[in-house]
Amino acid sequence: MNKINVGLIGVGRLGVLYARYLAYQIPASNLIAASDVNPAAEAAAKELGVKKWYSNYQDLIDDKQVDAVVIVTPTSNHRDTVTAAARAGKAIFCEKPLSISLDEARAMQKVVEETGVFFHMGFMRRFDRGFRAGKQKVEEGAIGKAVVFKASSRDPFRPSLEYLDPNHSGGLIIDMGIHDIDIARWMMGDVAQTYATGGVLAYPEINEVGDIDNAIVNLTFENGALGVIDLTRNGVYGYDIRTEVLGTQGTVKVGYLRETPIVMMTKDGVTHDTVPWFMERFGEAYVAQLQNFIEHLQKQKEPSIKCADGVEALRVAIAATRAFKENRPVAVAEIV
Amino acid sequence: MNKINVGLIGVGRLGVLYARYLAYQIPASNLIAASDVNPAAEAAAKELGVKKWYSNYQDLIDDKQVDAVVIVTPTSNHRDTVTAAARAGKAIFCEKPLSISLDEARAMQKVVEETGVFFHMGFMRRFDRGFRAGKQKVEEGAIGKAVVFKASSRDPFRPSLEYLDPNHSGGLIIDMGIHDIDIARWMMGDVAQTYATGGVLAYPEINEVGDIDNAIVNLTFENGALGVIDLTRNGVYGYDIRTEVLGTQGTVKVGYLRETPIVMMTKDGVTHDTVPWFMERFGEAYVAQLQNFIEHLQKQKEPSIKCADGVEALRVAIAATRAFKENRPVAVAEIV
Amino acid sequence: MNKINVGLIGVGRLGVLYARYLAYQIPASNLIAASDVNPAAEAAAKELGVKKWYSNYQDLIDDKQVDAVVIVTPTSNHRDTVTAAARAGKAIFCEKPLSISLDEARAMQKVVEETGVFFHMGFMRRFDRGFRAGKQKVEEGAIGKAVVFKASSRDPFRPSLEYLDPNHSGGLIIDMGIHDIDIARWMMGDVAQTYATGGVLAYPEINEVGDIDNAIVNLTFENGALGVIDLTRNGVYGYDIRTEVLGTQGTVKVGYLRETPIVMMTKDGVTHDTVPWFMERFGEAYVAQLQNFIEHLQKQKEPSIKCADGVEALRVAIAATRAFKENRPVAVAEIV
Amino acid sequence: MNKINVGLIGVGRLGVLYARYLAYQIPASNLIAASDVNPAAEAAAKELGVKKWYSNYQDLIDDKQVDAVVIVTPTSNHRDTVTAAARAGKAIFCEKPLSISLDEARAMQKVVEETGVFFHMGFMRRFDRGFRAGKQKVEEGAIGKAVVFKASSRDPFRPSLEYLDPNHSGGLIIDMGIHDIDIARWMMGDVAQTYATGGVLAYPEINEVGDIDNAIVNLTFENGALGVIDLTRNGVYGYDIRTEVLGTQGTVKVGYLRETPIVMMTKDGVTHDTVPWFMERFGEAYVAQLQNFIEHLQKQKEPSIKCADGVEALRVAIAATRAFKENRPVAVAEIV
Repeated sequence: MNKINVGLIGVGRLGVLYARYLAYQIPASNLIAASDVNPAAEAAAKELGVKKWYSNYQDLIDDKQVDAVVIVTPTSNHRDTVTAAARAGKAIFCEKPLSISLDEARAMQKVVEETGVFFHMGFMRRFDRGFRAGKQKVEEGAIGKAVVFKASSRDPFRPSLEYLDPNHSGGLIIDMGIHDIDIARWMMGDVAQTYATGGVLAYPEINEVGDIDNAIVNLTFENGALGVIDLTRNGVYGYDIRTEVLGTQGTVKVGYLRETPIVMMTKDGVTHDTVPWFMERFGEAYVAQLQNFIEHLQKQKEPSIKCADGVEALRVAIAATRAFKENRPVAVAEIV
Repeated sequence: MNKINVGLIGVGRLGVLYARYLAYQIPASNLIAASDVNPAAEAAAKELGVKKWYSNYQDLIDDKQVDAVVIVTPTSNHRDTVTAAARAGKAIFCEKPLSISLDEARAMQKVVEETGVFFHMGFMRRFDRGFRAGKQKVEEGAIGKAVVFKASSRDPFRPSLEYLDPNHSGGLIIDMGIHDIDIARWMMGDVAQTYATGGVLAYPEINEVGDIDNAIVNLTFENGALGVIDLTRNGVYGYDIRTEVLGTQGTVKVGYLRETPIVMMTKDGVTHDTVPWFMERFGEAYVAQLQNFIEHLQKQKEPSIKCADGVEALRVAIAATRAFKENRPVAVAEIV
Repeated sequence: MNKINVGLIGVGRLGVLYARYLAYQIPASNLIAASDVNPAAEAAAKELGVKKWYSNYQDLIDDKQVDAVVIVTPTSNHRDTVTAAARAGKAIFCEKPLSISLDEARAMQKVVEETGVFFHMGFMRRFDRGFRAGKQKVEEGAIGKAVVFKASSRDPFRPSLEYLDPNHSGGLIIDMGIHDIDIARWMMGDVAQTYATGGVLAYPEINEVGDIDNAIVNLTFENGALGVIDLTRNGVYGYDIRTEVLGTQGTVKVGYLRETPIVMMTKDGVTHDTVPWFMERFGEAYVAQLQNFIEHLQKQKEPSIKCADGVEALRVAIAATRAFKENRPVAVAEIV
Repeated sequence: MNKINVGLIGVGRLGVLYARYLAYQIPASNLIAASDVNPAAEAAAKELGVKKWYSNYQDLIDDKQVDAVVIVTPTSNHRDTVTAAARAGKAIFCEKPLSISLDEARAMQKVVEETGVFFHMGFMRRFDRGFRAGKQKVEEGAIGKAVVFKASSRDPFRPSLEYLDPNHSGGLIIDMGIHDIDIARWMMGDVAQTYATGGVLAYPEINEVGDIDNAIVNLTFENGALGVIDLTRNGVYGYDIRTEVLGTQGTVKVGYLRETPIVMMTKDGVTHDTVPWFMERFGEAYVAQLQNFIEHLQKQKEPSIKCADGVEALRVAIAATRAFKENRPVAVAEIV
């Protein structure tokens, strides 16, 4: 099979890592082009052997040699790049979240569906070994019927206030919770209703930008099952991501927190370290996801995660955000 | 110091255990009398060396030799026994829940306060080594400011439908959740608002009596901190009771699930057993609580858990039950 | 069945605990008498309600009301008390080690066998839930054929030099290792050969009394299976006692090190405490063992651990001590 | 800096993996040539983009473009390839064990030293994150003075009898134990004396080739510290590799056994899986080691593991093998 010629749009912090994966770790990928509005990013791309550099994403999309684009730009740019790439008939990988605006997300879904391009919605957790194994256990019936979904996402520090500004991030529930919501939908099915509590409890300065730093999000699934997600920016001890599905015959827990396989025992007790940050936790999953994107494209299989999954996760996150703001349960059907 | 002469009211399943503890394991306790409407219980009491047997609790209360009564009767009987004992000036230990009716609970609180008797509200978890150590860590500031409270209570099987009938049990949130709510108040302070989702997800026959088998209860504390409790009757793998308090500088987790300290490793993986049921988990805590009751009484200290704690935990549980039924957040202040 | 009237000989640190267990926690035991050369110990016995006090053990043994004696005196006194009690026809519980001299141990075994008295050799680990469960797994064949026995015993601090003096303690391998050797024999069968390395590695002052602070003891069982025990006085992080039996189909590990069921997670990592000392680890096992002694006596069953077990464990420990001193493998058969 | 042109000698099971690492995962490596006596291996090399194929290793060594050779041939071939490469002035990476013959190993060491070529002895465990972190803790003094070294290596199944034949493998202690011996030397220093017990306990057919399937190896270090290693071929539950260093202030344990980060809890207990085999456990370490080889070569640093380390580990393993065979402690100095 021919290799896929890939163009990378967005060579920021995550983009550079994607470049490395696409250049070295995925044999069927040929990273031939990259683009970023920041000219300083060119050097990083060149070092990885990327031949073509475009300061304008449209030029990259117009490059006839490019088969597929991987979009790792800021969320606010997703609509333009996705639309242009779809119109140019390129296969698309778009990093999460699709958008923080439901209208915008639906517009993207529409153009993707109309043009019929291959579109993979980036949610790397679905490619983590733990989450995959957890889902498999649920599907095998190892826990009976799944009745309660629990998830916990904890960031080890507060991002910049600029990053947190809900006008860009969508707010805590969208920014952090969308991963858990996607996993919830993947494991349990569609969500019918949400509710949320939250507050600024750890970093008072977050009030300046109008976001919160802790939230508890309730989900009621269409099949009646229950869900709850807790989100925090003050998981100062480490990057702690856990999920559990409780069934009628047992429960399966996904997650771990020890980074280095040693244990210390001294007069201070028994101690081990923790996972510091998301790349340590999900580095492998990012590679596996890009690998899956390239492979499904190459073998003309359906994308593993569709544009509609990005839209629907966003819709649930928006419902939960509204539920928090209005302090009432919000049906997902309300979000149109 | 003189020993305390104790009369035990209620010699059922838990009552017999209490009798054993009071007779053997608490040196300052002199278990001199017992009472139960069931004449078959007399033999058990006699075997433990309890001298006086009363078929009527009032006669036990009227016994001048009895200094203190320990009440382990069905909840519906608490009001009568507590009232009679308070009027007779006896020190009182009353097993949880105080009542399933707020009016009744408040009536008891009133008589206790008016008579000024020593009254210990039974919530054994506060005497568990794990919960005590967890609370101490929070108080020492080891996790900074406490901002999120999480708890999980899982029963390993479904009780009888007769037991589950909300007319007697108060329903899942009161019956199981009151322990977690008490711990939440103890560790975090008073609760301002509740919300809950729930359903009959594992045992359809529970619909017959009008209860549920799974619930997720949200708490918002008066200080703004958040809380969430998940309750299930289908923790079929074991009796799994966990609590966590997340703060601004770390988190403390309370709980464990291995009963026997062995680990098996075979081709089936790495395996250990689980805590089967509540006496294995909290047997020590029950003893410690009775010990504390006797000691505080003997040394004329304040009771460690007051009648008002029983009333307030009930009030929060009632608020959460209403929140579930009406699918809306319910302020605790609403429950009057 | 009648209760057993027990006389306790030796009311030191461990003796007081035994007194409490015999007085309160074992219903079929009637602790009626106690004896110690130290008159200060009388108060402790009286406080536990022990009626008769003897400053001379022989008087206690001569007391016609005493059915059974529990001997918790210094090891050097075992021979005299055991001999006298056996001659008087009393049932005997003797704390480990039987002796540090093989001749003396055999003399005791002879008198026990000649008089035919009930004799229980105290090795409390056999009554620990973990060790019992581990042995049961081995017997059930859950690990196939047992081929390697591993054990680790770690004391959290150095005892006094006076205690360590090998003339009294027998030296590290006898003093600490006899527990592991007994468990090894119990789980795996008789030992054919030993070898040991050791040294003064942590506390140079131990050289003064001629003992060592660390040792590794190899065992070769008569059935060909292998064993290894590591012993240390510098397990400064806690009282860490572990055993493992590796078989042809799996392995079973016995032991644990968390005393309080909480886990802390902060910027310093994930931490829990450790078991501080032997009473926290084996308190329950001590009670279970005394309970077993009383019950077997009452029901006229065989003692669970015999005098011969005490002799044989000592013999293996002596062989290993010689192996260490002479730096050569020593057959147990050599020790006569 | 210029990339290093690498020639791979030996494209068997492990060789193919090395080829992949050298071709894709180590940017500074340029895998330009490969060689194997098996012509079928050529296809695998070509698929990885290796340009030059040599059926004869000498031709590869004679290739002027080749800067460095990576030798992953059968152990019996090491002497010839190492010698030829050293004479040709190539930098050398040689997979463990250097040899099973001390004479041969020393001959190689001599040629390496005489020619002055860069020589890296392959012991991948030293590049595992757990082992590195463990060593660092020891060096930082986190456990005080290191006094006891423990290690356990368990293979999940029996290799073929052909593989086990001591004429090729050197026997269990050399074949498996050399890794633990190398780690022991790395963490604790040189070994003065060995002893070992062992036997055919799980697979009677191993008697046919004259090897054993279980062993316990004692080490006494030159500084007086103690060591013990247990080796088994019947770790049927998984690939279980653990090391511990006990010091005067604490202990550090290296190792883990859960492959997939999920835990199942059902009526059968709490279960997780195990690491299946060495590539799952040490895949990352193999890459890190090759990376280190290339980097040190490129930057003209000393090799991280020297030929002398390979010789000395072998010498200790030979001493332990003799100790087992002769059932006596064997000083390493005896092995000349």
